[in-house]
Amino acid sequence: MKDEHEQPAALRHAQSSSSKSEFDFIASLRQRVTSSALKSESLIAGIGDDAAVFRSSTGKETVITADLLVEDIDFRRTTTPPYLLGHKSLAVSLSDIAAMGARPMWSLISIGVPEDVWQTKFVDHFYDGLLELANHYGVQLIGGDTSRTTESIVIDSVVAGECAAGNSVLRSGARPGDQIFVTGSLGAAAAGLRLIERGAHLAEQNLADEDSQKLDHVLIRQLRPEPRVGWGMVLGEEHLATAMIDLSDGLSSDLNRLCAASEVGALIDSALLPIDNRVVELCGRRALDPLQLALHGGEDFELLFTVKPGDVARLPKRVDGVEIKRIGEVKEAVKGIEIAEGSRVWELKPGGWLHF
Amino acid sequence: MKDEHEQPAALRHAQSSSSKSEFDFIASLRQRVTSSALKSESLIAGIGDDAAVFRSSTGKETVITADLLVEDIDFRRTTTPPYLLGHKSLAVSLSDIAAMGARPMWSLISIGVPEDVWQTKFVDHFYDGLLELANHYGVQLIGGDTSRTTESIVIDSVVAGECAAGNSVLRSGARPGDQIFVTGSLGAAAAGLRLIERGAHLAEQNLADEDSQKLDHVLIRQLRPEPRVGWGMVLGEEHLATAMIDLSDGLSSDLNRLCAASEVGALIDSALLPIDNRVVELCGRRALDPLQLALHGGEDFELLFTVKPGDVARLPKRVDGVEIKRIGEVKEAVKGIEIAEGSRVWELKPGGWLHF
Repeated sequence: MKDEHEQPAALRHAQSSSSKSEFDFIASLRQRVTSSALKSESLIAGIGDDAAVFRSSTGKETVITADLLVEDIDFRRTTTPPYLLGHKSLAVSLSDIAAMGARPMWSLISIGVPEDVWQTKFVDHFYDGLLELANHYGVQLIGGDTSRTTESIVIDSVVAGECAAGNSVLRSGARPGDQIFVTGSLGAAAAGLRLIERGAHLAEQNLADEDSQKLDHVLIRQLRPEPRVGWGMVLGEEHLATAMIDLSDGLSSDLNRLCAASEVGALIDSALLPIDNRVVELCGRRALDPLQLALHGGEDFELLFTVKPGDVARLPKRVDGVEIKRIGEVKEAVKGIEIAEGSRVWELKPGGWLHF
Repeated sequence: MKDEHEQPAALRHAQSSSSKSEFDFIASLRQRVTSSALKSESLIAGIGDDAAVFRSSTGKETVITADLLVEDIDFRRTTTPPYLLGHKSLAVSLSDIAAMGARPMWSLISIGVPEDVWQTKFVDHFYDGLLELANHYGVQLIGGDTSRTTESIVIDSVVAGECAAGNSVLRSGARPGDQIFVTGSLGAAAAGLRLIERGAHLAEQNLADEDSQKLDHVLIRQLRPEPRVGWGMVLGEEHLATAMIDLSDGLSSDLNRLCAASEVGALIDSALLPIDNRVVELCGRRALDPLQLALHGGEDFELLFTVKPGDVARLPKRVDGVEIKRIGEVKEAVKGIEIAEGSRVWELKPGGWLHF
């Protein structure tokens, strides 16, 4: 699945030469589970969306997601302070709940660490960062598991959320003519990862000049992502989004997933992409391409969503200080998924990386 | 925390010399979470029981648990067929749901495997075993995550169950005078682990003589534990158990936990312990002590529960073909936790092992 774009060295998405795809596996697992005679009637969405959705008998929907974070795949111990790892472990799951249009309610965190890490303050600092974010959004930590591992740190973050019946936003609801939006800005998390891999680290705050403030900004976008919880809730509650996904693997990959689930195509205008300003400023001197980072870099944890033309005027200008940007339009499936760069139009292949 | 008992070489419970205890950590985490101003009013039990319990607005209680299984801590790849690992990963969480007196409803499974394992049929066979057990109990697999790891296989198994309001059975409800019971039999899982560590493996069925059938039995108790789902539901629905815990770390450890949560003591009669017959028969020739395995060996996944004297006559003789055995009585906390062996009475210290 090699494509013509430069591939950012995202740890998480290191492309492998494998013949077996994670997506194929999940699709086949979903098939086996869906065809089970025991499928619950209250299950609205199971494997294959950002989160599973249940309808309870009170008419509320419960949305639940799990994210596995593995040392040296998803993060490095040496470059990720434990406090920020705790924050990020919860943030990635909150982002999935936001992408379903739901309010996050509770969490289970399982963490495995080797003996030498257990003997430090690592796990305490991990939970400091995690609980600060949980408290910020009123999320209750209700359980999980703690285990020893032989070498690597591993975390499984499970978060459940809730919304009124019929308000959960699946990936599958986009229709031709819907306008495509993203929250916030793109590319900084991937730029941050590349710079961390080259040895960059957060500056001492009181020593920071203007350039290192820019650098800190992109590092923080990588190390301390802010899930778009407010936007997710507004888009769900107000029935504004017809389909939604969070940008964890990169715009090109995640747009392809949304379009596949909705059985539609899309046309994106590269000039409309809200590429992070500081990424543009930092990239020039560092031989990075901001557009490639914005299209294929993962972990921005922005929301990508589609809106009926008649609902566009109802969209708030900003939520929690975060703006949104229209970047394109949903097309018929036969049109494929394309990106316009000036007068040229290219096929936009998934350039985010798969685990396998 | 060394004690005078022989310590079975349980992988999972390998005792370490660490100064920092997993239980202390969980207790302190529970304290931090409980003291949060954001604690949900519908949360009946959070961190620290077999599972967390929620009361939904319909009056049903939702019970949810997570179990992290790590290669070379909880299992070895070379001695655990993937099909049985899938079974066990779900079984340990079903056992927690049973210990809450609830009916298991749905599950999220996160699994991380290294690239070379991904290229085999390992994950397929893992899910074969897992889904067979899930289907047996009508449990819906609704999601989870799949990730690459650098070396080890890691699994996080989350299961949620449901019961009528007020029916969940916590660890904290035992009172002096209550009778102490266990389901099934004790010691076989720990014997199986020891024999696997010495090189034993499941016999070809049609070649099995009487002795290798006994051996297979204890190996299967280790590799393919049967959660006591039926007993858990009966004890919860019929309000028969005042407190309950599943035997994952060993009777001595788990009884100590139940007593600590209930603020009571206990007296166990060693002559009443339902030690697995085949363990007794196999142990003689193999220098293993059946009583030590029954007391301190983990992973039997039987249920340990307490019953008011007036309710003992209401207990069914068997559920799903599994019998129960009275093994002792709840005492005042000042009496401590003791075991009688003939005319001698010993303090029963936790001999199951901690992760840290």
